[in-house]
Amino acid sequence: MGFDPQSLRFDAQGLVPAIAQEAGTGEVLMLAWMNADAVRKTLETGRVTYWSRSRKSFWVKGESSGHVQELVEMRFDCDRDCLLLQVRQTGPACHTNRRSCFYTAIRRGEEVEIMAPME
Amino acid sequence: MGFDPQSLRFDAQGLVPAIAQEAGTGEVLMLAWMNADAVRKTLETGRVTYWSRSRKSFWVKGESSGHVQELVEMRFDCDRDCLLLQVRQTGPACHTNRRSCFYTAIRRGEEVEIMAPME
Repeated sequence: MGFDPQSLRFDAQGLVPAIAQEAGTGEVLMLAWMNADAVRKTLETGRVTYWSRSRKSFWVKGESSGHVQELVEMRFDCDRDCLLLQVRQTGPACHTNRRSCFYTAIRRGEEVEIMAPME
Repeated sequence: MGFDPQSLRFDAQGLVPAIAQEAGTGEVLMLAWMNADAVRKTLETGRVTYWSRSRKSFWVKGESSGHVQELVEMRFDCDRDCLLLQVRQTGPACHTNRRSCFYTAIRRGEEVEIMAPME
């Protein structure tokens, strides 16, 4: 069955959350948002392209930093309202220079940093 | 630093997306939503508890099906607006009886089912 980006279930802002996961290791890198055109661009170019809610524009991940995400495979969930992107991440995914944005854990009620910035 | 659920950045509906990842394998199982009380309940009980947007009520994952999620660790991202839950999933996470909700991939423009329901 042919895939149509419009067949996804977008929220009131026309967006779906997209989880980026490193294809080789399974590490969850970040979550950002896509509209239908960002889904289309990502599939067409193989370069992961989000929709920036703050800048209200396309956000080709790594376009300025070089920390690009190469799409390995796009998947979606049973409700068609969330994407899982298998990617190959160059360098850090996080703007703090950490590999993943999820570098803070809650342990015994305390916030604990579990990942250092990359060199 | 002590963790306060209210310090997360909730959306206009008072929710944050929560990604559930199998702690042992790294498999991404599902994405659902939590409000501050669901975050608190999950941390207090060790049993993952979402907020059901359709039913507008707490949703203790697996309460009726037995397919519970035991919390191993809760993490949050650099923007404090998304959670990553390391869990131990009993049985399938998906209501379709599949291990993960992300069982459809897009390959060469086609929708491809990549995971069968569990026995």
